[in-house]
Amino acid sequence: MPGNSFGKIFKLTTFGESHGKALGGIIDGCPSNIEINYKKIKYELNRRRTGQSEIVTPRKEKDKFEILSGIYNNITTGTPIGFIIYNKDTKSKDYSNIKNIFRPSHADYTYYKKYKIRDYRGGGRSSARETVCRVFAGSIAKQILNKKKINIYAYVNSVGNISLNKKYYEIDKNIIENNIIRCPDIKISKKMIDLIKIKKDKGDTIGGTIVCVIENVPVGLGEPIFNKLHAELGKAMLTINAVKGFEYGSGFLGTKMSGSEHNDEFIKDYKTKTNYSGGIQGGISNGMDIYFKIAFKPVSTIKMNQYSINDKNKKVKITIKGRHDPCVLPRAVPIVESMASLVLLDYYLINKIYK
Amino acid sequence: MPGNSFGKIFKLTTFGESHGKALGGIIDGCPSNIEINYKKIKYELNRRRTGQSEIVTPRKEKDKFEILSGIYNNITTGTPIGFIIYNKDTKSKDYSNIKNIFRPSHADYTYYKKYKIRDYRGGGRSSARETVCRVFAGSIAKQILNKKKINIYAYVNSVGNISLNKKYYEIDKNIIENNIIRCPDIKISKKMIDLIKIKKDKGDTIGGTIVCVIENVPVGLGEPIFNKLHAELGKAMLTINAVKGFEYGSGFLGTKMSGSEHNDEFIKDYKTKTNYSGGIQGGISNGMDIYFKIAFKPVSTIKMNQYSINDKNKKVKITIKGRHDPCVLPRAVPIVESMASLVLLDYYLINKIYK
Amino acid sequence: MPGNSFGKIFKLTTFGESHGKALGGIIDGCPSNIEINYKKIKYELNRRRTGQSEIVTPRKEKDKFEILSGIYNNITTGTPIGFIIYNKDTKSKDYSNIKNIFRPSHADYTYYKKYKIRDYRGGGRSSARETVCRVFAGSIAKQILNKKKINIYAYVNSVGNISLNKKYYEIDKNIIENNIIRCPDIKISKKMIDLIKIKKDKGDTIGGTIVCVIENVPVGLGEPIFNKLHAELGKAMLTINAVKGFEYGSGFLGTKMSGSEHNDEFIKDYKTKTNYSGGIQGGISNGMDIYFKIAFKPVSTIKMNQYSINDKNKKVKITIKGRHDPCVLPRAVPIVESMASLVLLDYYLINKIYK
Amino acid sequence: MPGNSFGKIFKLTTFGESHGKALGGIIDGCPSNIEINYKKIKYELNRRRTGQSEIVTPRKEKDKFEILSGIYNNITTGTPIGFIIYNKDTKSKDYSNIKNIFRPSHADYTYYKKYKIRDYRGGGRSSARETVCRVFAGSIAKQILNKKKINIYAYVNSVGNISLNKKYYEIDKNIIENNIIRCPDIKISKKMIDLIKIKKDKGDTIGGTIVCVIENVPVGLGEPIFNKLHAELGKAMLTINAVKGFEYGSGFLGTKMSGSEHNDEFIKDYKTKTNYSGGIQGGISNGMDIYFKIAFKPVSTIKMNQYSINDKNKKVKITIKGRHDPCVLPRAVPIVESMASLVLLDYYLINKIYK
Repeated sequence: MPGNSFGKIFKLTTFGESHGKALGGIIDGCPSNIEINYKKIKYELNRRRTGQSEIVTPRKEKDKFEILSGIYNNITTGTPIGFIIYNKDTKSKDYSNIKNIFRPSHADYTYYKKYKIRDYRGGGRSSARETVCRVFAGSIAKQILNKKKINIYAYVNSVGNISLNKKYYEIDKNIIENNIIRCPDIKISKKMIDLIKIKKDKGDTIGGTIVCVIENVPVGLGEPIFNKLHAELGKAMLTINAVKGFEYGSGFLGTKMSGSEHNDEFIKDYKTKTNYSGGIQGGISNGMDIYFKIAFKPVSTIKMNQYSINDKNKKVKITIKGRHDPCVLPRAVPIVESMASLVLLDYYLINKIYK
Repeated sequence: MPGNSFGKIFKLTTFGESHGKALGGIIDGCPSNIEINYKKIKYELNRRRTGQSEIVTPRKEKDKFEILSGIYNNITTGTPIGFIIYNKDTKSKDYSNIKNIFRPSHADYTYYKKYKIRDYRGGGRSSARETVCRVFAGSIAKQILNKKKINIYAYVNSVGNISLNKKYYEIDKNIIENNIIRCPDIKISKKMIDLIKIKKDKGDTIGGTIVCVIENVPVGLGEPIFNKLHAELGKAMLTINAVKGFEYGSGFLGTKMSGSEHNDEFIKDYKTKTNYSGGIQGGISNGMDIYFKIAFKPVSTIKMNQYSINDKNKKVKITIKGRHDPCVLPRAVPIVESMASLVLLDYYLINKIYK
Repeated sequence: MPGNSFGKIFKLTTFGESHGKALGGIIDGCPSNIEINYKKIKYELNRRRTGQSEIVTPRKEKDKFEILSGIYNNITTGTPIGFIIYNKDTKSKDYSNIKNIFRPSHADYTYYKKYKIRDYRGGGRSSARETVCRVFAGSIAKQILNKKKINIYAYVNSVGNISLNKKYYEIDKNIIENNIIRCPDIKISKKMIDLIKIKKDKGDTIGGTIVCVIENVPVGLGEPIFNKLHAELGKAMLTINAVKGFEYGSGFLGTKMSGSEHNDEFIKDYKTKTNYSGGIQGGISNGMDIYFKIAFKPVSTIKMNQYSINDKNKKVKITIKGRHDPCVLPRAVPIVESMASLVLLDYYLINKIYK
Repeated sequence: MPGNSFGKIFKLTTFGESHGKALGGIIDGCPSNIEINYKKIKYELNRRRTGQSEIVTPRKEKDKFEILSGIYNNITTGTPIGFIIYNKDTKSKDYSNIKNIFRPSHADYTYYKKYKIRDYRGGGRSSARETVCRVFAGSIAKQILNKKKINIYAYVNSVGNISLNKKYYEIDKNIIENNIIRCPDIKISKKMIDLIKIKKDKGDTIGGTIVCVIENVPVGLGEPIFNKLHAELGKAMLTINAVKGFEYGSGFLGTKMSGSEHNDEFIKDYKTKTNYSGGIQGGISNGMDIYFKIAFKPVSTIKMNQYSINDKNKKVKITIKGRHDPCVLPRAVPIVESMASLVLLDYYLINKIYK
């Protein structure tokens, strides 16, 4: 019921606030006897890290992780994996001026009304700082999936009005990490970066979309009726801060098509000619690539002056200090991959029951 | 783990195949001492019913329900509500010719591979016939929500390329039920109906979108981090047959906006000037209207000739008989409302814990 | 949260009141492609049935079951199994005189206080009539376990002061069903039956214990820390009406032993010389027989005059009509086996994840 | 599914091995705005601590806890409470000689077979060291319950053959903590302590029973059918290391009684004259004291020579070093109270849904 766990078999529970002592979590249900590469965990955390480039927040967190249990001599033991990541670079006094004010389009007001108390420092639990735990756990899930040849990658598809305009199978995934925005097209990536810099200079922010692709998925993952694979993927993505939409396969464009256009004809060996289905039929993977797109709104924290209401129901002018991202997209790429990894591994393990 | 339950407190579990003896379910966790109006249940079932108009499938199911427990003298007792809806108009032999063939973009292939067995009659469990149980349960949830002044309605926003082009707050919800497509604009609805008829005459099908609105939601519903209200709504919608996408508030359009445009300024009494947030901030309802849009692909079952592969991996020509919808949209409206009702009531009850 | 489901993978949800239209349930998560023998289901239901002998309640329920989904041509399809059992022999007016009175040691008072409403007819949902659904589901679980060579049986070990005084491995399980009390000792069973008849003639009731044994359990079932196998078995047994205690292996007697006496020495092939552990170590099955004992209190419904309090807080004399068991033990044997089967199959399936 | 979480609303998830870096956990679902007294947490941890007296293991763990989130200025915020307790006094090399040997009646063999890997140091995850996290979380639950006037205490009722022979309502609970065995009778406690010392001197161990009492429980806690309050209490107790049995109310003795003796007559204000029901009827609390008894087997780790089998299926002589308890009872008292607190608070919160 309480909302800080994700997954049914490979199950992540997390804790931690943006400006608390530490964040961390427990992975329960990790299969035993799997070798874990700590460098790969670090690599993924670095992709999400603050201060990684000029277009992300300058907060400097090294995100050094400590594993406290569940892995012995680099091998998983089947017992829960406890992990911790300390906060090192918090500047809580940046937030003292908004202690009694509800920032627009933030979770300040709703947390306060729900819990009758509020940890205003850096947004407390509602901060995207929390996603560091998702990437830690996701990186372990990803390693396990990779050993089973399942491959997951994401990239930035649009920033504001600048869009990649390529199908997922037309891109070169090897160049995603070649630029700081993580777009697999050098020209477009430059335009995206320029746009973000313009917004940043104004103290403004901008949204965008990410596409995620999952290759080599075995047939059969997904549990109808209410735990369909794409429903769980959708939920997973919608839990990420700033996400406003999710579509898979043909998505919203598919609504304009006729059935005769949209149907994916089965060909030899049960592949399909087209893949409007997005690799999932009836909530169960069909062996084709799974792909989906996620909408991120612009970051709510802008440096421009705004008006709001304080906890006395009085209008106030508000100026937000603190260090923030002008655009979440580049740092969201590993978060999207992590959540996709958690879902895929979970459903992979669930499917073993029925074999 | 198994996927046939939905909800945590107000929990629906369903059973039944398209051409089996009956469908039904159990609602566990329904609060006691609530008067249930059976006519309202019937009204909602009729909105989803086959044969209700010339643009839906002609299968004639009366969807007469029987309540077996949990309600005594029309009052809920707090014990589980068992209900059953018999199948009356199945024509299973229409399906004998596709017994060994996997229909394109259907769940035939994935079910067969997952379970190594397949109930080919009418798609078995993967048929949208299953949603009759969702509407039964949703109609009870809706009645309970209505008593708490929470109001939920949905309407058809587009069919193919024909779109309403109005914001949710610009429509007159009272005319939704005045036309067989359930679009709150008489002119547009006619165009939509004409388009569906054209598709139907060709033996083809067409997709579209539905918008759902929830009014008078109390502040505080939603459980961060992984059970955010919009994430659960998104999951609920994505479990509905043929759904390919979900967006709430500003959705995919919001990705093109700047933070300074997108932020919803708080005004007196904690209302917001705009509502790009879609009534939810940080995963918790903020008291503004919740609204979201759902993408439905065109129905996979077309009457035109198609090619596919059979269970011997041989190419075959396929002609689908049976009775089917040229467009799921009009019948999907009450299903969307029902799933939204299940989520809202569930989160309403969960929130009582923290009061 | 709501309490009408049991199991995590092989998951039973039930509904129905003692004097309602019907009872029934849904089994979700049943593996596909398993042949189900309906006669075996009927056999188990008959062992639990009312009116089976002179020492049980004379209510005449045939417990004819109807399977509505999930099994096609006697083979499970992997979709939920919906089933229903109609009530045929209710005499609700027998209960009209206790409508406003709380029967001693019954659930009348607690249900009324919890739900603010009460279905007084035959105890409503709190009646042991509900266990018919457990036996239905348990009999399917048992069939599946039997195919995997896991064998479960239970027997009456004591009635009042009359006790079998044999270890579980000293009895002949083949004679359990040879007598109406289900005790594997003809002499003792006669004494037990006589004692029950004496109680019955007085309008009184008597308690007793049941022992359950599970043979051929594979090593490795059970999920530490909080889902230990014996903890789940204990919970399962404690959910059965009238159960007051549970012990496994050495149980309460083991508390008087020294470690040097109690330790089960491992011998060749990882068998143990003794089996005080009861087949479970650290919450995980070790391959030895699992055995446990369950305490049943005497039935609360006696025909002798009693005093109680009504819903106006007034003292009243109470005479209970209706038809009742003088001793639940003989009918509880298949219920115990059924709950044990549900737990074992569930844990068997869970364990497949980690293989 | 994975077994390291307990509770549904007030939900504890734990991690950590006996000789790992640290143990810890996350409490999710703790209500907000509750003041937490850290000294009371420490007090409970001290009652469970190693080295507290001459009759417990001499391992010296201070069990200093660190709270990392969820509590701000001593007030709960409604976000998950992350906590950590470092291991300080591990002597892992004491275990190197049993690296390849399965200790009798331990979990060595079953863990190894289940996970195909084994952390042999101090029993790894299967060690009772894990219960330190239960006491941490239980002490917070207890504080919250105390604020609602619900009071929970436990005491040692028997050690081997030495038994208190008093009903729970005949003891003076104020003297429980006056002696190192935690028995509320000075004379009996001395006998118990003497017996433990004798066993300790021999390198042997001894079992016993604990009684737990819960006072001032509101009417209505418990969720029928499968989540009855006593079933969850039973499960909770059975998850504690070394527990072999559970009984509540009249328990096993109740099986020898007639219904006419056992029935608890309702008297004025819905109290009952007797309390064989143990405060629970139909799985729901009735407002009377809840009481139950738990059986603990003798500790498996004895210093006397034993024989066992190693991982090559060869017979070996085994001498166990390490530091161990001759009797778990005194340290188990706060563990029992903690698990009871977790269950009671969880069910208290669940019951708010239905109000």
